[in-house]
Amino acid sequence: MRDFSADHRWLSLNTATVRKQGDLVQIIDACARHGIRAIDPWRDQVAAVGLDRAARAVREAGLELSGYCRGGMFTSDAARRIEVREDNRRTVDEAKALGAPCVVLVVGGLPQYSRPGSAVSKDIVAARAQVEDAIAEMMDYARGAKMPLAIEPLHPAYAADRACVNTTEQALDICDRLDPGRTGALGVALDVYHIWWDPDVLPQIRRAAKDRLLAFHVCDWLVPTKDILNDRGMMGDGLIDIKSLRAAVEAEGFAGYSEIEIFSEGWWTRPMDEVLQTCIQRHRTVV
Amino acid sequence: MRDFSADHRWLSLNTATVRKQGDLVQIIDACARHGIRAIDPWRDQVAAVGLDRAARAVREAGLELSGYCRGGMFTSDAARRIEVREDNRRTVDEAKALGAPCVVLVVGGLPQYSRPGSAVSKDIVAARAQVEDAIAEMMDYARGAKMPLAIEPLHPAYAADRACVNTTEQALDICDRLDPGRTGALGVALDVYHIWWDPDVLPQIRRAAKDRLLAFHVCDWLVPTKDILNDRGMMGDGLIDIKSLRAAVEAEGFAGYSEIEIFSEGWWTRPMDEVLQTCIQRHRTVV
Repeated sequence: MRDFSADHRWLSLNTATVRKQGDLVQIIDACARHGIRAIDPWRDQVAAVGLDRAARAVREAGLELSGYCRGGMFTSDAARRIEVREDNRRTVDEAKALGAPCVVLVVGGLPQYSRPGSAVSKDIVAARAQVEDAIAEMMDYARGAKMPLAIEPLHPAYAADRACVNTTEQALDICDRLDPGRTGALGVALDVYHIWWDPDVLPQIRRAAKDRLLAFHVCDWLVPTKDILNDRGMMGDGLIDIKSLRAAVEAEGFAGYSEIEIFSEGWWTRPMDEVLQTCIQRHRTVV
Repeated sequence: MRDFSADHRWLSLNTATVRKQGDLVQIIDACARHGIRAIDPWRDQVAAVGLDRAARAVREAGLELSGYCRGGMFTSDAARRIEVREDNRRTVDEAKALGAPCVVLVVGGLPQYSRPGSAVSKDIVAARAQVEDAIAEMMDYARGAKMPLAIEPLHPAYAADRACVNTTEQALDICDRLDPGRTGALGVALDVYHIWWDPDVLPQIRRAAKDRLLAFHVCDWLVPTKDILNDRGMMGDGLIDIKSLRAAVEAEGFAGYSEIEIFSEGWWTRPMDEVLQTCIQRHRTVV
């Protein structure tokens, strides 16, 4: 397991962590100030400053990307399928322009939440089938761009409204069916927030192995969690044994960034520099 | 699958559903008024009116019980283990006195939440091992009283603070290890709120089979869920395909009560009779 205590060489900032404190260019400037070498930007943040300007800012700051957030939201009613496909193809194009190593997929829950306006459904089994079909279709396009796709299993608390892929096992089952040859075109993005509770998580990390482990995200689970989406904790402030999960992915050969992604109404109110300093300090001590 | 549309013969009321509208005796009176034939009372509600008075009220109303809530909270530090064991033995005694068919087990999360004052731990693997040891010990006592224990897997959102048994598979793995002969001493209580998201839920219900299916609870998952503990929905107001889950347990031969358990700050503010009328109407239409 790598020693993170001496520097923050392997810290990546998911830019949603400070989304309310500045635009993407300002976040990139702050990363430069704090010696942060990598980011994972969100599409809306890129769109807000323009793709060209975002790509230039990344390049000029000498930043790497640890992913691009996000593709997916595959579930919809029939009328929206072409729109969903085109939207995901644009995501691949943007990721390519930005130099991202993969597109992170949040697959969508029930259609009415994934693509608002879609007919109401309670059929999560159908949603899961639709997700798998859509990933297969997106892979065809992404392969042409040599852009790996990283399925992010989301905590079961998001099954209805954000992602009906809720365990590492389920994500890896999809990987095995759609990319049995482990070509590198498809893998998983594992966020400790979503997987820490899973009694099967360690065997599944071993099953994923290096070639399926495309991204590793950290934050923490707070008790109480006041808001299921936007009350995630700074690493060390919650209950997740983060080091044991990082040890598990690194034991498989994962050697990429430890990406900090914190959706938190609390941290969004603090100055950007304070948040980044805290991230760096926690990265060195509890990640 | 049984037809619930014509009556509410198989409706049981978990008394936490109206815990703020009256004491247990008042709830039992209300059940009698509404022709509800079964309840699942909570220990604190029994204690508030006294065990003898509660048992008499149940008997005089001609009510059955569909369970007794709850045993468990097994995780603690070493100093509290005897206290935990004694507490769970008392739960068995109370269940016996009340004529309950089983004790529902909410097993506890990390020790500091399960038994406040316990030393802080982030080790969910250790918590799970402690739970299994403690269930084995409780079974010895419960067998003497011929009182089955029903492990309730709780939604992963409660892994830290309420229960580190979070899937039906995990609960059944414990059942298989501690009661390989399927003697009836150990089984599961399945609540749609906790299991609906699980991609493996239908195979696991088949695996449980009739002899492990000791209780079936219903409510609904709301989007958004404003409070992860106390914003559960009335059946039909959320996203769970309740009928498909009831069909699955009944396909295995489950023929017991469909127990309504709703923790909801919203429903707790409504008059008891309104809540019960709504429960009955939804039981007949969407359960």
